[in-house]
Amino acid sequence: MEKKNMEYLARLRKAMSDHGIDACVISGTDPHQSELPPHHWRGREWLTGFESGNGTNGTAVVTADEALCWTDSRYFLQAEEQLKGTGFKMMKEDGPEAVDLIDWLTEHTQAGQTVGIDGMTFSVSYAQRMEQELGDNGVKLNTDFPQFDYIYPERPERPMNKLFIHDETIVGETVESKMQRIMTEVKAELANAIFISALDDIAWATNLRAAGDICFSPIYVAFLYIGNDRRVLFVDKEKLTPEVEAHLAKYNIEVQPYDDAVKFVGELPKETRLLIDPAKTARGLYDHIACTTVFGGAGVAKLKSIKNDTMIANLEKAMEKDGVALTRFFMMVEKEYPTGKLTEMELGRRLRALRLADPTCVDESFSPILGWNGHGAIVHYEATEETDVTVEGDGLLLVDSGGQYTFGTTDITRTIALGTPTKEQIHDFTLVMKGHIALARAIFPEGTRGAQLDVLARQFLWAEGKAYYHGTGHGVGFFINCHEGPQNIRLNENPTPLQPGMITSNEPGIYLADRYGIRCENLIVTEPAMKSEEFGQFYRFETMTLFPFDLRLFETAIMTDEEIDWLNAYHKKVRERLTPLLTAEEGAWLAEKTKELKR
Amino acid sequence: MEKKNMEYLARLRKAMSDHGIDACVISGTDPHQSELPPHHWRGREWLTGFESGNGTNGTAVVTADEALCWTDSRYFLQAEEQLKGTGFKMMKEDGPEAVDLIDWLTEHTQAGQTVGIDGMTFSVSYAQRMEQELGDNGVKLNTDFPQFDYIYPERPERPMNKLFIHDETIVGETVESKMQRIMTEVKAELANAIFISALDDIAWATNLRAAGDICFSPIYVAFLYIGNDRRVLFVDKEKLTPEVEAHLAKYNIEVQPYDDAVKFVGELPKETRLLIDPAKTARGLYDHIACTTVFGGAGVAKLKSIKNDTMIANLEKAMEKDGVALTRFFMMVEKEYPTGKLTEMELGRRLRALRLADPTCVDESFSPILGWNGHGAIVHYEATEETDVTVEGDGLLLVDSGGQYTFGTTDITRTIALGTPTKEQIHDFTLVMKGHIALARAIFPEGTRGAQLDVLARQFLWAEGKAYYHGTGHGVGFFINCHEGPQNIRLNENPTPLQPGMITSNEPGIYLADRYGIRCENLIVTEPAMKSEEFGQFYRFETMTLFPFDLRLFETAIMTDEEIDWLNAYHKKVRERLTPLLTAEEGAWLAEKTKELKR
Repeated sequence: MEKKNMEYLARLRKAMSDHGIDACVISGTDPHQSELPPHHWRGREWLTGFESGNGTNGTAVVTADEALCWTDSRYFLQAEEQLKGTGFKMMKEDGPEAVDLIDWLTEHTQAGQTVGIDGMTFSVSYAQRMEQELGDNGVKLNTDFPQFDYIYPERPERPMNKLFIHDETIVGETVESKMQRIMTEVKAELANAIFISALDDIAWATNLRAAGDICFSPIYVAFLYIGNDRRVLFVDKEKLTPEVEAHLAKYNIEVQPYDDAVKFVGELPKETRLLIDPAKTARGLYDHIACTTVFGGAGVAKLKSIKNDTMIANLEKAMEKDGVALTRFFMMVEKEYPTGKLTEMELGRRLRALRLADPTCVDESFSPILGWNGHGAIVHYEATEETDVTVEGDGLLLVDSGGQYTFGTTDITRTIALGTPTKEQIHDFTLVMKGHIALARAIFPEGTRGAQLDVLARQFLWAEGKAYYHGTGHGVGFFINCHEGPQNIRLNENPTPLQPGMITSNEPGIYLADRYGIRCENLIVTEPAMKSEEFGQFYRFETMTLFPFDLRLFETAIMTDEEIDWLNAYHKKVRERLTPLLTAEEGAWLAEKTKELKR
Repeated sequence: MEKKNMEYLARLRKAMSDHGIDACVISGTDPHQSELPPHHWRGREWLTGFESGNGTNGTAVVTADEALCWTDSRYFLQAEEQLKGTGFKMMKEDGPEAVDLIDWLTEHTQAGQTVGIDGMTFSVSYAQRMEQELGDNGVKLNTDFPQFDYIYPERPERPMNKLFIHDETIVGETVESKMQRIMTEVKAELANAIFISALDDIAWATNLRAAGDICFSPIYVAFLYIGNDRRVLFVDKEKLTPEVEAHLAKYNIEVQPYDDAVKFVGELPKETRLLIDPAKTARGLYDHIACTTVFGGAGVAKLKSIKNDTMIANLEKAMEKDGVALTRFFMMVEKEYPTGKLTEMELGRRLRALRLADPTCVDESFSPILGWNGHGAIVHYEATEETDVTVEGDGLLLVDSGGQYTFGTTDITRTIALGTPTKEQIHDFTLVMKGHIALARAIFPEGTRGAQLDVLARQFLWAEGKAYYHGTGHGVGFFINCHEGPQNIRLNENPTPLQPGMITSNEPGIYLADRYGIRCENLIVTEPAMKSEEFGQFYRFETMTLFPFDLRLFETAIMTDEEIDWLNAYHKKVRERLTPLLTAEEGAWLAEKTKELKR
């Protein structure tokens, strides 16, 4: 059965032929390199039929004879299914059968041919790699082929959600102060102005947010220029309220139409030394810059990653709200599980409703993962109508979710037993928790990188020949993206040291295909520990997330006294912080869930 | 008081003037980038007067008005003292007052001037950096200024020690097999021949050794070319015995004079794609290469780092011999310490004599470190007539030493208490040992890098705000250099994964200035552990060194059962392996030193 997409594909091949394009590469992102772009930039989903409400990850290639769509292992099953009858074939961008897109392109084009892209949706870095490797083969890259302008009359408009101010009392810093700190970073890179494309950096710098532009993140579509004498926000006027206009005026930020950004960079004074991040800036924009360009600009992400005391204090409030929602959720699960009517999708709806019951919770912080037994072993599982199962019988339920509170972003994973857990499940859970606790208790000198600490979370699994392959921790934004850089805690080297104020997740796990998955995740903040003249400054982590771990899943025989003490102290803190916010019944439930673990 | 060196300096300035050189940089190494070059290449020591029998580390710069000698923190005190009255000023190449030599040069030369070096004693990489940074300033680099040819008539000859065969039954692999494996690496780098300058790689590839060319390492001065149809060893004929000549002939290795290497690379056929390691190859040699050059060549070091089963089995014998020597040494220390006559230097002489009593021990593997109390806190301490102290009163004695046995290279550090140790010393020693044991017990998946495991050795010190700054482990050669790459276990990232057969040290420590130093070092070999379809291959370490840790220095209250079990099992192995090789009296002493540690 052929799908309508075959018609779109034909339209594209006609446009390619009209413009002298032999192969077209279609990006899955937007001019801001967003992970989940607004619908306006989801032309690749429209073209291929591989799509979801929350967005998918994929890049397509179309030639006269071939149509391919690359995606990553999270989406292999979904893409394979959805691409049937569309004319597109799935290609793997990771895993053992991965094929590099640029390598494929190099092998399937010939000297004299032209590859076309919409330069506004490819980063400077990626387009440069493409241009170089194709160029070595005598193939030209045309970066001015905005294919959807020609073939997609139904294209949705850009999102026009209203901006709102993220209050200075919550973020603890004025826009003026941020602008000045950004300019210090700019000068350190020997530039005198910066053009920011990353939406999370722009939201942070302007203390502005919007709901709906980007799934699960209250950031908004814009560009931001900051120079010595001018600050310009490129944003659709429809998104501004009088309040936001006054806020921008207060900080001397001019407003220009979003579409004028390209023209603006083309008319910057010659003496401008413009700092851009080549991984975040669109090649289509870069092509228009007339002044000197300086590559760099990661300094803004670094400033954003370090949360001040006001933010940390507010995040504590968000954690309390989140703990209350989770208490209600897991009480409900325990109560209704015997009815045999709870499905993974139903649990997702209930959890969302409980979180959003709090007026400061604007959205979930990502598409929640609710996996029962075998589904818990799929790291990025998202229940759909096709996969949904009823939570019944014995097993483990993995719940990874979070909220976008105006007081901060949360991200928590708990794995609980329903029915009777097996000895093996209890043992594996305990190994994961021993790693979680080892990382939570770590003390380390200034300058330590996440990759150095990563083994603390993995060592107990490794000792038994077990492992997990995802990162142990990612940076977390403050009412911005749930995943942000520059720091992380991973197997791979990352030169960024952990600094006070950085929020990172602590989420070791283990996954046994078709059987069960376990992950235990809290957010931790880096803070100062001891300091001495002889050995310098040391740091520690403070765990911020507030919800108990399932006491039925601990094998105390393989735990040290220090580990049991840590768990009991953590549960005591959870109880003390959440109980005042709960009903008597909820408080009693929590007291039971946080009672002292004994050998 | 002026020293004779002022005369040498005048000779050099005359030669510079004769050759149109405005600034001269004098290397501290040889055409093989050796750490401790033969006397023939110690012209920098002769010129500056900063010298020692074992060699020093330093690079000198001379201009018309200035004469400077850079060195590292190990040598600051010695260099400061020895440079008095020589006309040279000491410069620091590490530490907080470090000055980069090339930066200094760039600031102190002007456009149109010429900097001269002897290209044979600078690596391609370093000379390239120099050339680039000077070139940016309009300064020329002349790489053909062999200054000592003009000013050093007393220059010692190249070492003419005889080569001997390192038996195939000991190394478990023929030269033919090594040559073929090297050519596989060469082809993987898209080259068809390799020119090797690193002396340890050459000794490994040829199964040949010599005693005396290089301090503490049985390697020899040569170059080695390997191509598809020719193999050429460039070595002084005087170094060859009939036996060695037959060995070389057997493997079709031609011999050409050492001095002909430069001419040889200039006459290679045009179609040669010659692989060289730019960090190990002399710029002076590179300047003559006429064919295509491919930079790379680290593959030989990788092959060399992986020891086969025969080598591991032989290293076990070397460890037994070393354990016997150390048993005799520490028995002697205990017995003679009350006489108050043992000094650090005397201990060094005794230890050397005890090791070399074994006929298979050719030399020590480095200049031993014997540090009593405060001297133990100087990481690279070497007792001299000026610093030597008597070992008396209460305290800790740190002994870091090793031997070059034909059966393999050893490197061991023990810290023992003499008199009564303090509670603090016992506590710190136990923290160091907890780290040592954690690393020794580590199990980790294929692909793991040393930097990922490093924290295991540091974590217990860090938890108390204490630290050490040297690496936790370095690679160790097999009857070659005691320090070799490519793997290590350090704070810094190193992309090389740990592989089965690699020998690495495990040497955490702690150093309290002017008080005491503690270091506990064994050699460990990576070997396969469990393997499963689900989680792949895991590795573990086997500890190879055989000598007990001082039982008086353990604070059992802060140790886990697993740690105490590890120590007791290790001591049992030491006792079982060494006792058959000891006298009854020595065996009884060892039995006491390896008795079970109880809470």
